Amino acid sequence: MRPINRSFDMTRRVLLSTLAVLPALSGPLLPLSARAQVVTSRGVLPSWNDGPAKQAIFEFVRSTTDRSSSNYVVQEDRIAVFDQDGTLWVEHPMYTQVIYCLERVPAVVERKPELKNVEPFKTVLSGDREAISKLSIRDLEEILAATLTGMSVDHFDAEVKKWLGTARDPRWKRPYTELAYQPMLEVLHYLRDNGYRTYIVTGGGQDFVRVYAQQVYGIPPEQVVGTAGGTKFGYGSDGKPFLTKEPKLLLNDDKAGKPEGIHLIIGRRPYAAFGNSTGDREMLEWTGAGVGARLKMLLLHDDARREYAYGPAQDLPDTKVGTFTPELYDEAKKNGWTVISMKNDWKRIFAFE
Amino acid sequence: MRPINRSFDMTRRVLLSTLAVLPALSGPLLPLSARAQVVTSRGVLPSWNDGPAKQAIFEFVRSTTDRSSSNYVVQEDRIAVFDQDGTLWVEHPMYTQVIYCLERVPAVVERKPELKNVEPFKTVLSGDREAISKLSIRDLEEILAATLTGMSVDHFDAEVKKWLGTARDPRWKRPYTELAYQPMLEVLHYLRDNGYRTYIVTGGGQDFVRVYAQQVYGIPPEQVVGTAGGTKFGYGSDGKPFLTKEPKLLLNDDKAGKPEGIHLIIGRRPYAAFGNSTGDREMLEWTGAGVGARLKMLLLHDDARREYAYGPAQDLPDTKVGTFTPELYDEAKKNGWTVISMKNDWKRIFAFE
Repeated sequence: MRPINRSFDMTRRVLLSTLAVLPALSGPLLPLSARAQVVTSRGVLPSWNDGPAKQAIFEFVRSTTDRSSSNYVVQEDRIAVFDQDGTLWVEHPMYTQVIYCLERVPAVVERKPELKNVEPFKTVLSGDREAISKLSIRDLEEILAATLTGMSVDHFDAEVKKWLGTARDPRWKRPYTELAYQPMLEVLHYLRDNGYRTYIVTGGGQDFVRVYAQQVYGIPPEQVVGTAGGTKFGYGSDGKPFLTKEPKLLLNDDKAGKPEGIHLIIGRRPYAAFGNSTGDREMLEWTGAGVGARLKMLLLHDDARREYAYGPAQDLPDTKVGTFTPELYDEAKKNGWTVISMKNDWKRIFAFE
Repeated sequence: MRPINRSFDMTRRVLLSTLAVLPALSGPLLPLSARAQVVTSRGVLPSWNDGPAKQAIFEFVRSTTDRSSSNYVVQEDRIAVFDQDGTLWVEHPMYTQVIYCLERVPAVVERKPELKNVEPFKTVLSGDREAISKLSIRDLEEILAATLTGMSVDHFDAEVKKWLGTARDPRWKRPYTELAYQPMLEVLHYLRDNGYRTYIVTGGGQDFVRVYAQQVYGIPPEQVVGTAGGTKFGYGSDGKPFLTKEPKLLLNDDKAGKPEGIHLIIGRRPYAAFGNSTGDREMLEWTGAGVGARLKMLLLHDDARREYAYGPAQDLPDTKVGTFTPELYDEAKKNGWTVISMKNDWKRIFAFE
């Protein structure tokens, strides 16, 4: 089987371009105080401006939950799926999980000192950004395997939890778990309030996202579908059973892997799907191919001031993270998918604003 | 990857011994009328006799749902897992899914006439039980691959549904879906009434069991964990996307594969686990290794009159289906797992009685 590491859809180009962006992020913060504080109304989706995107969500919920509607959906079938990186929280300049893996290298080397002078660990330990950016795909795969596998699932959970408690994003200087988009959290709540079960369907690691999905999104572990490696059942010296995370890929939950993962874990076709990149294309197509009302939404990052602008917005043309290609934009228009403009549709981006 | 077919834990010996039993099943029915009709009380678990098994279930539910109990479990964590074949419904003399595969062969040959005179399909078409019983593992794998893969998931669902509507079990002359154990259906309801989510964790095919689990057990597709093959996303000539069932194994959900499957699909450790064979051993161990009150139960088939007797009961010593070995019996006693005696603990077996 292919190593799990391929799963993160990370290319050398991504790492190169994203690392190049990193130093700039240590610079001055955006003038938060300059932005008007949004007074949340008592209504739903308070962080959304009125417009076609908000309207599409309202209309979808109305038509699928109104018993007199021809598009009424029984509650058991109400499934909504959300990509995570770039859809529910910030993915730029680097997936949070990749940052985790790079930052875990010192701990791995502490446990296995023989790796200290071995590449690629030596380069990562050096902290030399330029050298790190030149690591090969194979090197990066080795780093991911060393930091994501070879330990018990309980140990992995504890390590991720610990890291999330102390790690800070370089731009907003906040825990990564605070970088969820407030308007999307409101959509999750609104759908749940209307009988929908909300799932994350992410190219990121299923075990990684499950650690914080309940806390950040109110989504329980069994409703996180992600790239998943195998585990191996075994017994400790005390006779107690445990599961070890193995470096083998079971599900590459990206692109065509998303509908495949939805079938594997959920076994139902979703009625609503939210994404932001070509990695979500097949998931939106699969959702849209069902009968009745289906909500298909793509988030466009076009707000360089409050977050980032990339994809069709092209303020960051070199970045391959979360590719929203012109072709995807065309497909969205052709198929009647709704594009959410971060700049125009969202009153605010984060809860802490 | 290994072919999916291995997953059904079916050996030549199983097929041989079970086929040998089949003709006897066409004989006279058990004198149903001779058995006293059980008057169901208004209480819970009406089909259970008072005794340690019923008591263990009551005590588990009380101690995990009573807020004043030191073993109280918050509702989100209330997960109960059930093996299917031999635990929730009849597995003897042959797994229902294997019968499905054998009976699907004529339809496969109709679609691909070139297989008519090719082994092993020729032998299955002959209906010669002795010849069928001599098929090799490789032959059987070929039959399973031909009948379970290579079609869209929607097509497979429709075929299974159609088959279940007409197929009849040879002993009771009833649809297989009526062969669920009434006492276990009552346990499923009782646990759900107390905030537990009930999951099937089966060595059988996940897609197969998902077709009828809601109807038979009240268990939705997303709560069926089973042996799972990969699917492949593609587009039809009309441009519409579909998923094809592939002959590659993602999860062999038996023995050690059960806790591995639980981790993959659920991501939480269960508080209650029900099984009946060595295939469930690791699942019960994994459940039992958690802190607090954990219910571990094994169903013993010791009722040759009303159902079957095998395993430690040894009325059918040649049968390897659902192996309840003496070692498993010892482990159950040592670890405080509760053994359910079908003969002594159950007032009735089926709803139709």
